[in-house]
Amino acid sequence: MRILLTNDDGIYAPGIKALRQVLEKEEKYELTVVAPDREKSATGHGITVHRPLRAFDITFKNSKVRGVSVDGTPADCVKLAVEALLDKPPDLVLSGINSGPNLGTDVLYSGTVSAAIEAMINGIPAIAISMGSFAFEDEEYLRAAEIFARLLPRILEHPWPRDTILNINIPNVPLEEIKGIAITRLGVRKYINVFEERKDPRGLSYYWLSGEAVNYENGQDTDTAALARKEISITPLHFDLTNYHYLNELKTWVKALEEALATG
Amino acid sequence: MRILLTNDDGIYAPGIKALRQVLEKEEKYELTVVAPDREKSATGHGITVHRPLRAFDITFKNSKVRGVSVDGTPADCVKLAVEALLDKPPDLVLSGINSGPNLGTDVLYSGTVSAAIEAMINGIPAIAISMGSFAFEDEEYLRAAEIFARLLPRILEHPWPRDTILNINIPNVPLEEIKGIAITRLGVRKYINVFEERKDPRGLSYYWLSGEAVNYENGQDTDTAALARKEISITPLHFDLTNYHYLNELKTWVKALEEALATG
Repeated sequence: MRILLTNDDGIYAPGIKALRQVLEKEEKYELTVVAPDREKSATGHGITVHRPLRAFDITFKNSKVRGVSVDGTPADCVKLAVEALLDKPPDLVLSGINSGPNLGTDVLYSGTVSAAIEAMINGIPAIAISMGSFAFEDEEYLRAAEIFARLLPRILEHPWPRDTILNINIPNVPLEEIKGIAITRLGVRKYINVFEERKDPRGLSYYWLSGEAVNYENGQDTDTAALARKEISITPLHFDLTNYHYLNELKTWVKALEEALATG
Repeated sequence: MRILLTNDDGIYAPGIKALRQVLEKEEKYELTVVAPDREKSATGHGITVHRPLRAFDITFKNSKVRGVSVDGTPADCVKLAVEALLDKPPDLVLSGINSGPNLGTDVLYSGTVSAAIEAMINGIPAIAISMGSFAFEDEEYLRAAEIFARLLPRILEHPWPRDTILNINIPNVPLEEIKGIAITRLGVRKYINVFEERKDPRGLSYYWLSGEAVNYENGQDTDTAALARKEISITPLHFDLTNYHYLNELKTWVKALEEALATG
C-alpha cells in the first residue's frame, strides 16, 4: 500500500516525523513524504497560482523513505505529488499529525484538513490526523502515532465513500487513559477577543490575531465533546458545501427575483 | 443598512469598484470597503496568524465611502473589520464581484467565498458574487453590479438561515440575454493537465499550476449547468463539512476500532 504523508506544520515537524517513524516499521506500507518546507498552519484550502512551485528531495536520518520539500501549501503538496512527483497516485493520503486539534468550525482554516480534502478531490482516500491538544514533545507525537497505527488496518478494512475524508483527533494522553472512540459531527467553535491592536515605534497600528477558542455547540455527538471526554474523535467530512436543507425554500424566491430582474 | 464590501482580487479591482459605485447611488446603503491590498485569489479560507496585519485608510475618487486596505487574506479582512475596524458589525457582507466564476468544487479554493463564510461565522449575513466568466472591462463588471443591485432588495426581504451564505454567479452578458435565475447545488469541477514542469537556467525544475477546468457532474440542478444556460446561479452554502449521510454507517466501525485500540 502506497501512502503519501503530508502536513501543514512543515516537513521537519515532529508530528509527521512520528507518523513516518511508526508506519515505516510495517513492511506493508510504502511511504513517501511530500510536505511544505515550512509551517503553513491556517492556510485553509489555499493553492499557489501566481508563482511556480519548487520541490527538493530530502533524506531523513536512519530512514529509506523518500522526502520532498515543497515551497507551497499543504494542498499544493498533494496536488504536486499526485500530478507531477509520484510515478503513480498513492492509495492513501495521511495528513498530520497536526500539533493541535482540528475541530468544529476550525477545520475550514486547517491546512491539515485541506491536504486531505485535496486528496479526495483527486480521488484518493485520505485521513487528517491531529493532536487533541497542543503537543510539544516528540514522545507525545510518537504515542499518538502508535495509537493511530493500531487503528489504521481496521480503518482500511472499511472503504469509505469517495466524497468523504476522515478527520481524526487523538487525545494527547497515554493509550490507557483513552476512553474510547466516538464517531462525531463537527461542533461550533468561536473565538473571543480576536484582535490585539498594538502601536509600532512610529505610532502606527498593527493587529495581532489572538483570542481564545470557545466551543459554542457542545452536543454530546460533536467532536469537541468527544475530545473533552478523552475519546478519539472521527468525523466524516465531505467537500460539498451546498446546504441541501435550504435548497427548496430558496427556490420559492425565484419568481420574485426574476420579477426584480425584469423591472429593476 | 450597513454593508461591508470585500473581495479577493484586491481593493482596487474593477469588480469591487463596480459594486461600490452602483450601490453607493442608493441612500439606503451605508458602505464600507475593507479589502486586501493586492490580489489574493485561491487563498482558500486562509487567515494570517504568524505576523500582524496592517490596515490603512484609503480614499476612492469621487466617493465618500470609507476604504481600508489590509495586507491579509479576504477572511482576515472580514475578521479585522468586524472585530477591530468598524464601530459596530455590518448588517451584511458582500464579497466580490470576483473576476471569474466560483462554481462547484472550486468554492473550496475561493477567497471570495471564504470572506463570505468568515462573515457567517461571525453571525453576519453574507453573499459572494462572481462573474460567470472571466471579465476584463469595467463595463462588464458595472452591468453585473447593476444586475445584482436589482436583486438585492428582494434578497433582503427573505432572511436566510444564519449558517448559510448565498453564492451568486452572474453570467457575463447584458441583462437582456440573461435567461433567468436558478437555485442550484454545487457541481463538481476538476482540472486536467494540472502542472507544467519547466527547467530554470540552472537546470532545476519548477512547476506551474495550470490546467483546464472540466465540469464532471453536470446535473441540470447544478451551478455549472445554470451558468451554461446563461442563468444567474444562486447556491446556498453552509460551513458544516460533516457528511451526515455517512455518520451512521461509520458508527458501525466503532466496536472493531475499539478492539484494535485495546489489542494493538
